[in-house]
Amino acid sequence: MSDHRLDAPIVICSNRGPVSYHSVDGELEGVRGAGGLISGLLPLMESGRARWIAAALSEEDRVAAALGLPERFGPLHLLDINTEDLDLYYNVVSNEVLWFLHHGLLDSTYTPDYTDEWRTAWQAYRRVNTAFAEAVCNHGPHGATVLVQDYHLSLLAPLVAAERPDLRLVHFHHTPFAGPGEVRLLEPTARREILTSLAAHHACGFHIGRWETNFRRCIEDMHLPSTSTFTSTLSSDLGAIREVAASPACDAALAKLTERVGDRFVIGRVDRMELSKNIVRGFAAYERLLGLRPELVGRVVFVAQCYPSRVNVPAYRRYRDLVVDTVERINGRWGSAEWTPIELADVDDFPASVATYRRYDALLVNPVRDGLNLVAKEGPAVNERHGQVVLSSEAGASVELAGAADEVHPFDVVATSEALSAIIDRSPSERRARSEQLRRDIESRTPQDWLADQLHAAE
Amino acid sequence: MSDHRLDAPIVICSNRGPVSYHSVDGELEGVRGAGGLISGLLPLMESGRARWIAAALSEEDRVAAALGLPERFGPLHLLDINTEDLDLYYNVVSNEVLWFLHHGLLDSTYTPDYTDEWRTAWQAYRRVNTAFAEAVCNHGPHGATVLVQDYHLSLLAPLVAAERPDLRLVHFHHTPFAGPGEVRLLEPTARREILTSLAAHHACGFHIGRWETNFRRCIEDMHLPSTSTFTSTLSSDLGAIREVAASPACDAALAKLTERVGDRFVIGRVDRMELSKNIVRGFAAYERLLGLRPELVGRVVFVAQCYPSRVNVPAYRRYRDLVVDTVERINGRWGSAEWTPIELADVDDFPASVATYRRYDALLVNPVRDGLNLVAKEGPAVNERHGQVVLSSEAGASVELAGAADEVHPFDVVATSEALSAIIDRSPSERRARSEQLRRDIESRTPQDWLADQLHAAE
Repeated sequence: MSDHRLDAPIVICSNRGPVSYHSVDGELEGVRGAGGLISGLLPLMESGRARWIAAALSEEDRVAAALGLPERFGPLHLLDINTEDLDLYYNVVSNEVLWFLHHGLLDSTYTPDYTDEWRTAWQAYRRVNTAFAEAVCNHGPHGATVLVQDYHLSLLAPLVAAERPDLRLVHFHHTPFAGPGEVRLLEPTARREILTSLAAHHACGFHIGRWETNFRRCIEDMHLPSTSTFTSTLSSDLGAIREVAASPACDAALAKLTERVGDRFVIGRVDRMELSKNIVRGFAAYERLLGLRPELVGRVVFVAQCYPSRVNVPAYRRYRDLVVDTVERINGRWGSAEWTPIELADVDDFPASVATYRRYDALLVNPVRDGLNLVAKEGPAVNERHGQVVLSSEAGASVELAGAADEVHPFDVVATSEALSAIIDRSPSERRARSEQLRRDIESRTPQDWLADQLHAAE
Repeated sequence: MSDHRLDAPIVICSNRGPVSYHSVDGELEGVRGAGGLISGLLPLMESGRARWIAAALSEEDRVAAALGLPERFGPLHLLDINTEDLDLYYNVVSNEVLWFLHHGLLDSTYTPDYTDEWRTAWQAYRRVNTAFAEAVCNHGPHGATVLVQDYHLSLLAPLVAAERPDLRLVHFHHTPFAGPGEVRLLEPTARREILTSLAAHHACGFHIGRWETNFRRCIEDMHLPSTSTFTSTLSSDLGAIREVAASPACDAALAKLTERVGDRFVIGRVDRMELSKNIVRGFAAYERLLGLRPELVGRVVFVAQCYPSRVNVPAYRRYRDLVVDTVERINGRWGSAEWTPIELADVDDFPASVATYRRYDALLVNPVRDGLNLVAKEGPAVNERHGQVVLSSEAGASVELAGAADEVHPFDVVATSEALSAIIDRSPSERRARSEQLRRDIESRTPQDWLADQLHAAE
């Protein structure tokens, strides 16, 4: 097999691009996003080998695209998609249905309903995918490898393949992939179209074998021709996290945190305020611990950085309300003038989140289901206390971190509580050994490794 | 292979027995239950070949068992299990968790929590299963085939096999079986114990291939030794339904129904008030039809017999409230002094349910997920109008009735609405042909066929 494709030009397609535009004093300013995907690709864009196709997500993005500003940044195309289509494709099909589906979060007694509005949304999803496909056909260099990112862009492959057989198409799911029984919750036309289109890639990638197996079984159950699949974990941009950890803003946040928590044992969590993150069951495990070990009252504190997410979606507001009510109830029951058992910060404050990473003694990462989970990798990268990680068996990261993290089932409040209790009792030497193992596991992969896996899969 | 086991003695184990006891004028009276299992087994009990082991489910059952009354009925053992264990085994483990799990109804953001109370309930589930296993060991004739029924009794097989290697054990799931991703929602100890114990049967049976495949994949993913599996659909006792249909009570109910609905087109449904039955989306499909076809206003009526179920469970009360609110809203919006668009009867009135079977023009059977669904088989058996059946693709019965029913995805309100609309427009000759095909499909299986499949599987 020839490996010339490892040097082929690259086209990346994703809903969100590496740069977004904001109006600052009447000027449009491009701000670079964070994450492994961007840090892995950026050098290749700067060298001209890679180009990126994404949606213009705001009015500022649209104006910037019309003025040709993204091209200054590198070979970047921000597609001007009408706002109604963008809303339906993103908020209804991608977020309300596909996100919930792949995370096993649909409460199927009540949602979804495939109404006439759904059909309108599905047509919009198709149109947006078609716009991406056209952009790939128009801008893709001959023989390029096209890296299509995530569940927003399921339908490109057959459209591109028909017009540009010279391109190699690789799809990567950053979320979990639902199993065949769950995928049957999708409206049958959409289900068939999504699976058929995914199977039309030269390869489909997933973080771990469980998501890959789910996909393969879906393909098998629909009697579709099988496609090549692979697994590859995407790492955080540890350099960027460490840069933030070393910043004066983070030092200041840590100083404030230390002033409040003193030398108490700190249980930390850093998450979007998101249903899949399982925040409430984490507090229930903590409350059980306080009940069973009264000597911990006043000696431990739960620092929860839960930054806002999808605040306009009723399911998210309902969940946020439950999180806040739970914190108030636990603090009311167990707290005192000198001691707040749970410090909940439901604001977006990245330096404070990284300060929590630096300070925790135990990091609780207990999602209901997660494609990978980057918090479990970012925390140990900058933690300064030989902190331990309690990790959900349903997070993809549990495969890589199995040896050094404390694995728990996310619904198992008892086991979660006992894992925290065991960490409190763990000797300093074992804490050190485990935290060093965590760091080695995390540093063993780079975003460049992930990129290399994609290009290999395209061969 | 020898087939001597086809003549072997039979032991049936199920949570609910074929007879329950009630106090009538101070005397305990045994009342025979309904259903294909009972009608298939009863002749064999009367001849002494089969015996039945079940739980005493009420105080009257317990007193009757202590007095030896069940034995008068045939070789029937009603196990006296303490009420607290019975409550935890049945209401918590079986109904709150396993029923929801296998039907895909867990709203995993919020439920379940595996707390200390869960662990107590799981121990009770184990004890009840152990009590059944001991009864099988004590009462099972040498070389008997033991037919273990449903998800309540998952754990018997290893206990029985250790003590009575002469017995052949067959398990049958009357519900769907959840796929591997959904089964991961179970607490890991319980998950492993249930799957290991099921795999310890000589064979495990399911209504359709999809549930069988799910089970096989669960076994595969846990690296358990595989066991023999088979599919076999259990039929209703059509004779018993036809007896009710021919009764004066049913005639009277039909006369009252006819008085109200006249010659209108009747959409019928008969269900427990149960989350999996998808009652609300059925009404939404009906309302869409009224909106799109104004000529139907006043000319069609939806007769919904939804008898109460698990009324003490909050999730069921919440669902019932939504059903009632939806009916009131639709009747308020579309109804008039002369016409009630939806007639909801949320009472247990079997003659009235069978009268609805006799009278419907279209029967709506749209469960979110269902092991088989007997309504789809009972309705056509006694319908007198060449009525049609709109059937969920997620009901096991859709495999047998695919040719003659109108299949819809249960969440697809548009498709459900369009299926009803198409039936209204369908010619009398096509309605007759389909209804006759439905009846042939239904009559092609008897409860005795199901029983024969179990005994073959034991070989």
